[in-house]
Amino acid sequence: MSSQDVQRPICIIGLGLIGGSLLRDLAGYNHPVFGYNHSTSGARTAVKQGFDVTDDLPTILTRAETENALIVIAVPMNAVGEVLDAIQEHAPSCGITDVVSVKTAVRQQVLERGMESRYVGGHPMAGTSKSGWDNSQKDLFRRAAWGITYDYAAECEARGEKIPKQWIETFTEVVRMTQMVHAEAVPIRVANHDAAVARISHLPHVFAEILAVVGDNGGILAQSLSAGSFKDATRVAGTHPELVQQMCETNAPALVEALDEALDLLRDAREKLDSPEPSIAELSDAGYRARTRIDARSGARKESVSPVKISSRPVLRLHPGGPNWVAQLRQSESLGGRIEIF
Amino acid sequence: MSSQDVQRPICIIGLGLIGGSLLRDLAGYNHPVFGYNHSTSGARTAVKQGFDVTDDLPTILTRAETENALIVIAVPMNAVGEVLDAIQEHAPSCGITDVVSVKTAVRQQVLERGMESRYVGGHPMAGTSKSGWDNSQKDLFRRAAWGITYDYAAECEARGEKIPKQWIETFTEVVRMTQMVHAEAVPIRVANHDAAVARISHLPHVFAEILAVVGDNGGILAQSLSAGSFKDATRVAGTHPELVQQMCETNAPALVEALDEALDLLRDAREKLDSPEPSIAELSDAGYRARTRIDARSGARKESVSPVKISSRPVLRLHPGGPNWVAQLRQSESLGGRIEIF
Repeated sequence: MSSQDVQRPICIIGLGLIGGSLLRDLAGYNHPVFGYNHSTSGARTAVKQGFDVTDDLPTILTRAETENALIVIAVPMNAVGEVLDAIQEHAPSCGITDVVSVKTAVRQQVLERGMESRYVGGHPMAGTSKSGWDNSQKDLFRRAAWGITYDYAAECEARGEKIPKQWIETFTEVVRMTQMVHAEAVPIRVANHDAAVARISHLPHVFAEILAVVGDNGGILAQSLSAGSFKDATRVAGTHPELVQQMCETNAPALVEALDEALDLLRDAREKLDSPEPSIAELSDAGYRARTRIDARSGARKESVSPVKISSRPVLRLHPGGPNWVAQLRQSESLGGRIEIF
Repeated sequence: MSSQDVQRPICIIGLGLIGGSLLRDLAGYNHPVFGYNHSTSGARTAVKQGFDVTDDLPTILTRAETENALIVIAVPMNAVGEVLDAIQEHAPSCGITDVVSVKTAVRQQVLERGMESRYVGGHPMAGTSKSGWDNSQKDLFRRAAWGITYDYAAECEARGEKIPKQWIETFTEVVRMTQMVHAEAVPIRVANHDAAVARISHLPHVFAEILAVVGDNGGILAQSLSAGSFKDATRVAGTHPELVQQMCETNAPALVEALDEALDLLRDAREKLDSPEPSIAELSDAGYRARTRIDARSGARKESVSPVKISSRPVLRLHPGGPNWVAQLRQSESLGGRIEIF
């Protein structure tokens, strides 16, 4: 049995919507998985439901170290630092990934502790406006993009250094884990990730908050007239405010850039509407064309009548550590593609 | 049989998404209904599907006059004027309503032609991002608010004039029609309507266009990472640009007001994020509270597990033309309520 065939256990730190859903899926596929919930009652609930869960962080990390587990950090951004400290203390040799929605800030914490050769960043593009273990669910990640960062490998290469074997193994384990839960592994560097999610996740959150406030300012009559499109447009404003803060505030530089683009468009629309011959032709054309492209790229993924859903992301099969594999990651990233490991 | 029990036929001018769906519903309930489609091939398709449809406007309006039909104008805003002219010529005594999404502009056309005593404005808050007869569908209006304007009655009262019997009958017929298709009739004056839809319909359209453009600017990688929330947030950007123009441009004054509120919030969010200690606490709290109120007002309507969906809009049963009935309309409007006619 080669090292690649070993079923390395997975240890999930934090069992909210994402960590909890990951635990449910992996357990459902009979992959060895155990988790930590900082809430004693939350942990107890999960145990009663038959999951291997505890509220004792040092103990579970010691176990991760003993079993050579892959550790998944699934806590809010502001708790990442102390979890990394605990990992250094109790699980000094395990590979580490995370599922936090902003990657620069997490990487910074990793770099500050000199843990970069053990760390591969991750971010599943899945979720609901609900949070917590009670809202976690099976099959949340199916067909979702799961961003996987590889800056460390790119930097080793640029410096002409060999990429440490542990990093390559951790990268492999992370991709395998995403494949197990039927997500699509999208290689992406940290800065590109944060710029992209500012546009397609954090800006939509800001817009939803604003729409909710302006709609609510219209009072009960506006609410009474509001239909499905308004409910859809404001849905993510139902996300707990602290989670929105964690996402948006830790990704502020990239988000400000997206906000500036949006502000320019909004100011321009306002000026063209506040004129003797109000017009919104330019924006409605541009938005329609953009949305049409978005739909086209989604391809057969959602709309196909076939029961076999086809991904619109081009696939690249690679062998981590093989010749040119980092160049292949870059190529896949430039296409928004997904990778599979053989 | 009192005049209220007469099954007055309904003549629908324009068979796009809204007019077409209304025709399908009324025909399905065996209510006498006939329609006009300006497209010959579109009319032919509807005829083949068994509907009483023609592409000959003078003929169908003459028939409406003969049968004392209620005429529903369901054409885009820029065609309303010529339809009103044709009605004056061929159906000089029929009651008229419309389903156009902006009410000030339609009322202006009605007033210019001195047709106000025959006209009761309407606007069903239902739709999809698709348009045209081929996308029209049964049961589109179930539980949707259907704004019904009563400025003419309020103005008659204010001037101490008697409200003409024809107007009261037309109002009654319009409410009855909305009840037939299981919509909820929400009395609302024109200015209040246009201010409300600017907030909960037209601003969301502008935001969706902008999100689509800014997301698309992120290129294929951003698209690849985009998930359900981005698709939801940009869904209405898939509306045909001309329809967006018609809505937003004809409601420009109210929309500019809503845009200014949104711009203030967006500029403020940008400033607070572009600081040494980035914060979006204020907006995310306000948005969350607003969204929670929106959900609460929607009440049991969507989320109830009961098969009998309960409307969250308070109901007021009234007798058009009865004592104080216009005051009752005002009261219902102030609550975002719905009316039923007994």
